[in-house]
Amino acid sequence: MTDKIRVALVGATGVAGQQFLAALPDHPLFQVVKLAASERSAGKRYLDALRDPGGALRWWCREPLPAEYAGMVLADAACMSTEGIDLVFTAVESDAARALEPRFAQHVPVVSTASAYRYDPDVPVFLPAVNMDHTRLIDTQRRRRGWKGYITPGPNCTTTGLAITLKPILDRFGLEKVMMTSLQSCSGAGRSPGVIGLDIIDNIIPYIPKEEEKVEQETRKILGSIVQHGADVAVVPLSLSVSCTCTRVPVIEGHTEAVYCATSRPAPIAEVKQAMEEFGAELRRLNLPSMPAQLIYVHDDPFRPQPRLDRDCGKGMTTVVGRLRPETTLGTHGVKYVLVSHNTKMGAATGAILIAEYLTQTGYVR
Amino acid sequence: MTDKIRVALVGATGVAGQQFLAALPDHPLFQVVKLAASERSAGKRYLDALRDPGGALRWWCREPLPAEYAGMVLADAACMSTEGIDLVFTAVESDAARALEPRFAQHVPVVSTASAYRYDPDVPVFLPAVNMDHTRLIDTQRRRRGWKGYITPGPNCTTTGLAITLKPILDRFGLEKVMMTSLQSCSGAGRSPGVIGLDIIDNIIPYIPKEEEKVEQETRKILGSIVQHGADVAVVPLSLSVSCTCTRVPVIEGHTEAVYCATSRPAPIAEVKQAMEEFGAELRRLNLPSMPAQLIYVHDDPFRPQPRLDRDCGKGMTTVVGRLRPETTLGTHGVKYVLVSHNTKMGAATGAILIAEYLTQTGYVR
Amino acid sequence: MTDKIRVALVGATGVAGQQFLAALPDHPLFQVVKLAASERSAGKRYLDALRDPGGALRWWCREPLPAEYAGMVLADAACMSTEGIDLVFTAVESDAARALEPRFAQHVPVVSTASAYRYDPDVPVFLPAVNMDHTRLIDTQRRRRGWKGYITPGPNCTTTGLAITLKPILDRFGLEKVMMTSLQSCSGAGRSPGVIGLDIIDNIIPYIPKEEEKVEQETRKILGSIVQHGADVAVVPLSLSVSCTCTRVPVIEGHTEAVYCATSRPAPIAEVKQAMEEFGAELRRLNLPSMPAQLIYVHDDPFRPQPRLDRDCGKGMTTVVGRLRPETTLGTHGVKYVLVSHNTKMGAATGAILIAEYLTQTGYVR
Amino acid sequence: MTDKIRVALVGATGVAGQQFLAALPDHPLFQVVKLAASERSAGKRYLDALRDPGGALRWWCREPLPAEYAGMVLADAACMSTEGIDLVFTAVESDAARALEPRFAQHVPVVSTASAYRYDPDVPVFLPAVNMDHTRLIDTQRRRRGWKGYITPGPNCTTTGLAITLKPILDRFGLEKVMMTSLQSCSGAGRSPGVIGLDIIDNIIPYIPKEEEKVEQETRKILGSIVQHGADVAVVPLSLSVSCTCTRVPVIEGHTEAVYCATSRPAPIAEVKQAMEEFGAELRRLNLPSMPAQLIYVHDDPFRPQPRLDRDCGKGMTTVVGRLRPETTLGTHGVKYVLVSHNTKMGAATGAILIAEYLTQTGYVR
Repeated sequence: MTDKIRVALVGATGVAGQQFLAALPDHPLFQVVKLAASERSAGKRYLDALRDPGGALRWWCREPLPAEYAGMVLADAACMSTEGIDLVFTAVESDAARALEPRFAQHVPVVSTASAYRYDPDVPVFLPAVNMDHTRLIDTQRRRRGWKGYITPGPNCTTTGLAITLKPILDRFGLEKVMMTSLQSCSGAGRSPGVIGLDIIDNIIPYIPKEEEKVEQETRKILGSIVQHGADVAVVPLSLSVSCTCTRVPVIEGHTEAVYCATSRPAPIAEVKQAMEEFGAELRRLNLPSMPAQLIYVHDDPFRPQPRLDRDCGKGMTTVVGRLRPETTLGTHGVKYVLVSHNTKMGAATGAILIAEYLTQTGYVR
Repeated sequence: MTDKIRVALVGATGVAGQQFLAALPDHPLFQVVKLAASERSAGKRYLDALRDPGGALRWWCREPLPAEYAGMVLADAACMSTEGIDLVFTAVESDAARALEPRFAQHVPVVSTASAYRYDPDVPVFLPAVNMDHTRLIDTQRRRRGWKGYITPGPNCTTTGLAITLKPILDRFGLEKVMMTSLQSCSGAGRSPGVIGLDIIDNIIPYIPKEEEKVEQETRKILGSIVQHGADVAVVPLSLSVSCTCTRVPVIEGHTEAVYCATSRPAPIAEVKQAMEEFGAELRRLNLPSMPAQLIYVHDDPFRPQPRLDRDCGKGMTTVVGRLRPETTLGTHGVKYVLVSHNTKMGAATGAILIAEYLTQTGYVR
Repeated sequence: MTDKIRVALVGATGVAGQQFLAALPDHPLFQVVKLAASERSAGKRYLDALRDPGGALRWWCREPLPAEYAGMVLADAACMSTEGIDLVFTAVESDAARALEPRFAQHVPVVSTASAYRYDPDVPVFLPAVNMDHTRLIDTQRRRRGWKGYITPGPNCTTTGLAITLKPILDRFGLEKVMMTSLQSCSGAGRSPGVIGLDIIDNIIPYIPKEEEKVEQETRKILGSIVQHGADVAVVPLSLSVSCTCTRVPVIEGHTEAVYCATSRPAPIAEVKQAMEEFGAELRRLNLPSMPAQLIYVHDDPFRPQPRLDRDCGKGMTTVVGRLRPETTLGTHGVKYVLVSHNTKMGAATGAILIAEYLTQTGYVR
Repeated sequence: MTDKIRVALVGATGVAGQQFLAALPDHPLFQVVKLAASERSAGKRYLDALRDPGGALRWWCREPLPAEYAGMVLADAACMSTEGIDLVFTAVESDAARALEPRFAQHVPVVSTASAYRYDPDVPVFLPAVNMDHTRLIDTQRRRRGWKGYITPGPNCTTTGLAITLKPILDRFGLEKVMMTSLQSCSGAGRSPGVIGLDIIDNIIPYIPKEEEKVEQETRKILGSIVQHGADVAVVPLSLSVSCTCTRVPVIEGHTEAVYCATSRPAPIAEVKQAMEEFGAELRRLNLPSMPAQLIYVHDDPFRPQPRLDRDCGKGMTTVVGRLRPETTLGTHGVKYVLVSHNTKMGAATGAILIAEYLTQTGYVR
């Protein structure tokens, strides 16, 4: 036990924080030694902090609340020390992340689900198997900021499924343009208050503030290349035209996205399918605990993927694709498809854990 | 126009407040001359106060926002004067009502949707056609409190449908016991934050804090009798055993209730149906503007009532009953049935307006 | 009354058929004199035919079932005569329409909601205000087929909102390419069995068989031009590249569509908005009873349109647009937007009635 | 493998049939050797029979379709032989069960989810831990009917949760009266067509034909006692007054029930809770593979049970209770509570498997 990486989870009570805790019991590499939350919850036992004023236990995961965390007393994130901690996971809102993460990163690596630092030039936005070479940014970040640790946020939950399915297309056929309409689940909006029932039952909300800009910008960065600038490296974003419409639908979990791609070269459906299904083979060789058998699964059944049926594929770590067919309106060549991605697992907590596993195996943690 | 009752609406931005405004344009008796809200909204135009931080217009009613109210500037409820006002409607939370309503009631009548004063012995809880003789409590209340006006709250939205359907049974067959399980809609929980989508989609929440106690206590009071105590009168609650379970379901509007009654005398189904359908005939003779053609409509189709199909019956003022059948487990005689009642119309705003119309016609306003 | 157009409705019991009946009482031009249905329902009173085996009344419209139709006895569509009929509305499945419609069209005009003849070269697919000049096809159709009447199907319910919003863009800025992702409501799938709750609650179904092909083909035909070929005329479909993904969502009524257009010329947002809001002015001058005040309404609120809030705009006849913004990924110039269209009103029954009103006013009926 | 009980599953394609197959792979006692369905599906591979005409795979379980069954060719239930079969599970509609089950029962035991024979006096309706002594009816049934096998249907899915929670109350405090309002999920209505989305989204359906009668009658039979009549035994139904209202709600799986009991003796909440949580201890000693750790789990959190959060408790075999509180309206003493029971697992397929395991262990199979 003492050999495991000692982990602190900051933002433990939110939807994403809970997904971390649902995934971390008995983890072979990580041991949760500290939970932190906002001042309002600090000092309470985790179980008590989850109760709302009426007494309801606000635990959303399908997995039961692990007994080992229920009694842990929450630290106040604002003054949490990193003493005795090897790695910090943060699952807080962007404003809180902006204030907290640099303080932790002075001492230890911070793997984050927040957007605060995603767009800084020396901050990598890792997506498993897509851009592990961006680790080289870490050294630049450390040097520039004089930190012992560093910050690595994961992508927005809507970017995750898009970028992971675009990467094998980019590698094999080249990518010119991407259009995407998302049908996003309610869990993505969190709990305070998130999307209220009165708004979403029998309804669609056609706008999620800032979401489209995030998806467009992050996709280009994630798919970008590392270039050397003197002692430092930088990411050159992929030159890719991306256009999105992001909507909210009455679905609990699992983001659905209708994607249209124009490719540089002809992209026969069978080859695209093969490229997607083989994607991630190299990363799989590292035997990371949270790595699913397939990063992308492709359905032939035209009625799939469906969020309720497919979100839990690969324990929520596999992006499920269907309706793969030629797309010739957007460009000369291309494909269109529908994907489902679990927004609070691969798109948030478990995705961050998988990145942390990679960073641990490759020597970037402790 | 100058002849109309000059009305102030306090709590204009909430779900119930909006329903008042949806119902009041072109009202033959009332003219809205002032809108008030909490300090946060005071000073804003009504339309602007309805926008959330992201810019979304939080208007929930099916009817469009009446143009005549959109530009009105909101007063601060905490320091609103009743000068130039004949009548105040309040649609605020209980705590706010407790502080605000007595201040208004010193000068003018206050017809309220809040629970703050419902259980005070000198405060009537009017339900149309059920207990209009409780107006006699108004004189007692005024005398005791030294007010020029008075407070008359309407019942809880879940009590409304129950008590209105019990009254014709009570009058004709006597009532011994009542059991009720409610399936309540999300609009009843309001908007801050109300019930969140993450909790209610594909789900039932089996508990609504304080709701069952309210229903049990209010039902007895509403169905109670007026007795003289010296110069004053008081309500003697009906001696009736009531047991409830209140649940929340994924329905936008319209509370559904499964009701079981033990009656004092045999209650043949056909006679119960007739008693329900005739109920309110006397009140109907006053030609109050918000009075529906029937206060209770009884379906023979066993698949009715359904909230989505029946909540708007009589513009949301008719309680719709179905599945009327004998009940002999609860007592020797009785009936059981299912009802649907529009919780933010008859059960809140328009119900309060109908009461105000009655009070106006009978000389209790101005 | 005797002056009104005598109408038969074929397929009266389905979802679209019911919407016809909800709209036709007191219609100034049309009098329903006959209702027809399949052999299974023939001979029953309309009210009885709506009951399922368990006794439930299968009437879906928000408007109550008009009393004047409840007692009408259903004719058998397969052997219905057009004697005493001036006009037939059909609201049946495609296969039934293929067999029935030519038989009626030998004698009288048939305004249809079915797809059976939409793709025949001499059959116009009318969309109000978009292509009323396609009436010239009617003469060609009559001459070629030797019919006294003719067949005019309306578009697929998903095409309706798309084509009506594209037309003002096409006219003012030219159209190069269109991409569209739909989020379609359950009512579009009808009742036998339509979409079952078990499949659609907390879920998205990413495929609706044949829908995408219909939308792509119909959009080009509806926006096409009439050319003379000797004595006949024909429609030359618009040369427009269209790509769609059609999905089903847990919404009762109202199709939502995310649309992306590449235009031939720069399309400033303010001008596109103006073009949309002015669209249909010419048709409005005819004072057709079912014509809404605006065929297209454009919201500035980015959170609109929402199907639950906007589907009933203009009694379900107004297409509501929002999120209008520049689109430069698809082409050099362009716009993207979200629309909501009522799929069983403007997209089916009431849309067909509006067309029939136009044909009546312009001398194509009786 | 040859030692396992050889099982045929009749009605393999329906919702309940699928739940059998989701539960049976790697079962330590049972080996599925034959799948049967109606004539329409007979001769097809199981996987193909699950596809609807549009090609969609109609597999509803959260668990993936087990590969070992996908390729099995379906027998025609109407002429299926029991040769080589030790036990038949049936998951068909009542009419089909009426015709099929006696034919199989001539040769082998039939454990059924259908209602056809539930009300026959010599047919036990087993509910795990509640009435295992009713096995004595099996000998009577065999003798009377001259069968080698026998028929044992499980209860209606709504009866299951009710009767299993009533039993510990009955045993410890006596039971006088029971009232129950159910909020039933859509999966209980099956797939052909079940409840359609158009009817159930944003809605409640207050009637499920025949359901209330089944619950009332079955509860008395299941809780009844075995008495000797000469060579035979019979069940004397419990003398218990039961009154129900059964409704359908927009929930995918898991029936919620609000239960009110009048007990013969005072029933302190703490003792009722203890009685429920200890219930089934004796049966647990048999170590049956499908037996959960607890048959009943009692929540203190008043916001539980919720169907989405609690239906999968104990792999869908644990009935989850909450809101346990005194009930004094129905009778002198008593309790009221809310329960959630997984209607297609414990309430159908896995419940039947658990019964079959018991019958196997106690020598009633092979």
